[in-house]
Amino acid sequence: MAKPTPLSGFPEFLPADRVVEQQVIATLSRTFELHGFGNIETRAVEPMDQLLRKGETSKEVYVLKRLHDTDGDAGMGLHFDLTVPFARYVMENAGKLEFPFRRWQIQKVWRGERPQEGRFREFTQADIDIVGRDVLPFHHDVEVARVMVEALSQLEFLPGFRLQVNNRKLIQGFYEGVGATDTDKVMQVIDKLDKLPVEKVRELLQTDAGLDEKQADLCLQLATIESEDASFVDAVRALGVESELLEEGLAELAAVVAGCAPVTSETVKVVADLKIARGLDYYTGTVFETRLTGFESLGSICSGGRYDALASDGRFTYPGVGISLGLSRLLVPLVQKGHLGGSRPVPSAVLVALNEEGARPAADAVAQQLRSSGVPTEVAAKADKFGKQIRYAEKRGIPFVLFARTDEAGTTTYEAKDIRSGEQVSVDPATWTPPTTDLTPQVITKEQLS
Amino acid sequence: MAKPTPLSGFPEFLPADRVVEQQVIATLSRTFELHGFGNIETRAVEPMDQLLRKGETSKEVYVLKRLHDTDGDAGMGLHFDLTVPFARYVMENAGKLEFPFRRWQIQKVWRGERPQEGRFREFTQADIDIVGRDVLPFHHDVEVARVMVEALSQLEFLPGFRLQVNNRKLIQGFYEGVGATDTDKVMQVIDKLDKLPVEKVRELLQTDAGLDEKQADLCLQLATIESEDASFVDAVRALGVESELLEEGLAELAAVVAGCAPVTSETVKVVADLKIARGLDYYTGTVFETRLTGFESLGSICSGGRYDALASDGRFTYPGVGISLGLSRLLVPLVQKGHLGGSRPVPSAVLVALNEEGARPAADAVAQQLRSSGVPTEVAAKADKFGKQIRYAEKRGIPFVLFARTDEAGTTTYEAKDIRSGEQVSVDPATWTPPTTDLTPQVITKEQLS
Repeated sequence: MAKPTPLSGFPEFLPADRVVEQQVIATLSRTFELHGFGNIETRAVEPMDQLLRKGETSKEVYVLKRLHDTDGDAGMGLHFDLTVPFARYVMENAGKLEFPFRRWQIQKVWRGERPQEGRFREFTQADIDIVGRDVLPFHHDVEVARVMVEALSQLEFLPGFRLQVNNRKLIQGFYEGVGATDTDKVMQVIDKLDKLPVEKVRELLQTDAGLDEKQADLCLQLATIESEDASFVDAVRALGVESELLEEGLAELAAVVAGCAPVTSETVKVVADLKIARGLDYYTGTVFETRLTGFESLGSICSGGRYDALASDGRFTYPGVGISLGLSRLLVPLVQKGHLGGSRPVPSAVLVALNEEGARPAADAVAQQLRSSGVPTEVAAKADKFGKQIRYAEKRGIPFVLFARTDEAGTTTYEAKDIRSGEQVSVDPATWTPPTTDLTPQVITKEQLS
Repeated sequence: MAKPTPLSGFPEFLPADRVVEQQVIATLSRTFELHGFGNIETRAVEPMDQLLRKGETSKEVYVLKRLHDTDGDAGMGLHFDLTVPFARYVMENAGKLEFPFRRWQIQKVWRGERPQEGRFREFTQADIDIVGRDVLPFHHDVEVARVMVEALSQLEFLPGFRLQVNNRKLIQGFYEGVGATDTDKVMQVIDKLDKLPVEKVRELLQTDAGLDEKQADLCLQLATIESEDASFVDAVRALGVESELLEEGLAELAAVVAGCAPVTSETVKVVADLKIARGLDYYTGTVFETRLTGFESLGSICSGGRYDALASDGRFTYPGVGISLGLSRLLVPLVQKGHLGGSRPVPSAVLVALNEEGARPAADAVAQQLRSSGVPTEVAAKADKFGKQIRYAEKRGIPFVLFARTDEAGTTTYEAKDIRSGEQVSVDPATWTPPTTDLTPQVITKEQLS
């Protein structure tokens, strides 16, 4: 077989880099569970009518077809996000769930994009959502933001980040107060501020959204407002626009910013940013985006918001609020560009050396002692000279080699050699463990890698 | 939207049942890593020529097609096991891996089966493999068996099980010694012993495999031999058949049984079982199957073996030995039939009660104190009477409700109520934690469930 080549858009990690992803997932899920979010996994496929029910035919869905089926596809496609399957899961199991229902979910999703740089066709997302039946108190908006900020903050090897929050009620209320008739259109045009020059947006607000020059100007001024505290409220009021919906939105946004204050820091910011709109999505209140400091070109790594109807079955409506972290979007570039990596490609902290094949049962027994103390351990694949065994460990980044010494009286003792320092000490395999930081592979940053 | 119905063959767990799967995965991966197996994840798709390279067109592969692509499929299908992607990963990254390469992998696989009872179209497998470059010492056969037995043994809530081991060299050598010309055919016929009556198999050995009556009889006798120790060797020798390959197989099988002895127990058996053949698979030495005690109708929950060439790139050959646990095959029936479940559907061990909405910030702060001690905690969704909050906790199986009492002097103290016993004690949220067994949901068995 010829050497296979990678498939564009389907990133895979080498073992040492997979360590980064494993540890990120462990940290995220630990934080989510500390906050009472339960885990679910949904199947990879959904019926096509579910996948397309929001009219999202623009999404590049992968449709499944059985190899031996000649009469068309199976009517199913791979999910392109975790929200559609979650909504379906909630509807399907509503009678068996308790509301408000909190869940975390970390799974792969697929999009049938044409292969191109930076576009993934398979990638992992980490979502948290809280869904209610008919009602879902607003304070859950604050909760999901705070939980995700806390989870990301635990990843100490990441650069800082900035959670940008806005509120659809605020902007819609403002546009109404300004006198706009098609507020959705205004929002869609304002959403282009990160792609088009201000003057072009000002023009579109007049030509496409039917605003006059003064109205357009007010909407553009609103979009420039941002603050790390409640001061944005006064800045909005200074524009002299009034509406009930605007007031509601201001109060909600101020509550999110205030509620997140306890989890912010020098490098972790939660800001009211009034240009964030999440244009085409179906949010109805709070909206979130997140930028990684120094890696703003990655776009928003973590987005979400409040939707008044995640799903509805005629009898009940299920309002929800959620936030979704693009795990691959975050990690793949950081790993590929060498900013993050794992300290070694194997879990083993100790290699038990082997002088001769006959000593394998004894070496296995010693290894088992170490494992029962929680020390990942492997036994040399073959008996070999000591120098070769050291090199075996070195190649894998295994920090310690343990070897047996038998004296003239036939007594066996053990020594552990730290192959980085060369230091060698007598140890009792029944009680000895390496230092905690050596027990498992660590995530290391560019500075440590170089 | 009408209530969605489950898709046949795509099992999903309710949150409490997902707890079982989560804990099984955590235990397995912990054991694998203690033995130095590193984790990888491979993409869900492979090029069709990879999926079908063993000529396995009989496999029901799901082929992918982009929704908006009118000119045929994408040339890719979903993997139907974890061996094909692993072999491809090894070849693709051979230059960056150290051999022998140990890996564990727990992922979903897909098979485009027609919907029918007990046939999964999406299911999870847990694989460990060790692969070498050009050579892979035999002792790794013992290692993978022992690691998987140890991992399964850690799942204390499972019934006992029986790992059945055989060796292709042994049976092939025996058939050659008997004088069979088409040993593969003999093996395929013998493999039908679990489906057909002995007399029918005896007949097929003569009509299809070209044996005479005495030869057929010897092969059938071989298949009846089993033992928990090396005594099978004498039983085989007593049949008076001789060949070099047979001797090699006998020695290897005896070594696996002896090597696994330290991890066996009253309920966990490792047996030499000479009827195991794994008929159509491409094993070349050791073969494994596993039966769950009392659930033999599930078939083999865990199978594998040695293959002399997992992959080959012209320059090198990559021999391997591995074993694959059918996680869904094991857990879905046990959960669906009520033999196993999670003790509660939420991670929360404590609910912080709320007398009035204004007390939410204080309740959040107390919850955060508990979380920093590692206690999964949620705050009441809304302020309510104490009785209603107890019922909220009860419905979710949250064992403790924490509430604040403020005395006449304005001093606030906290009490924790165990809602099962009704016992209520004064606690300091900065230091108090529930008993360890209440901290996380537990896997419980039928006896405990009823």
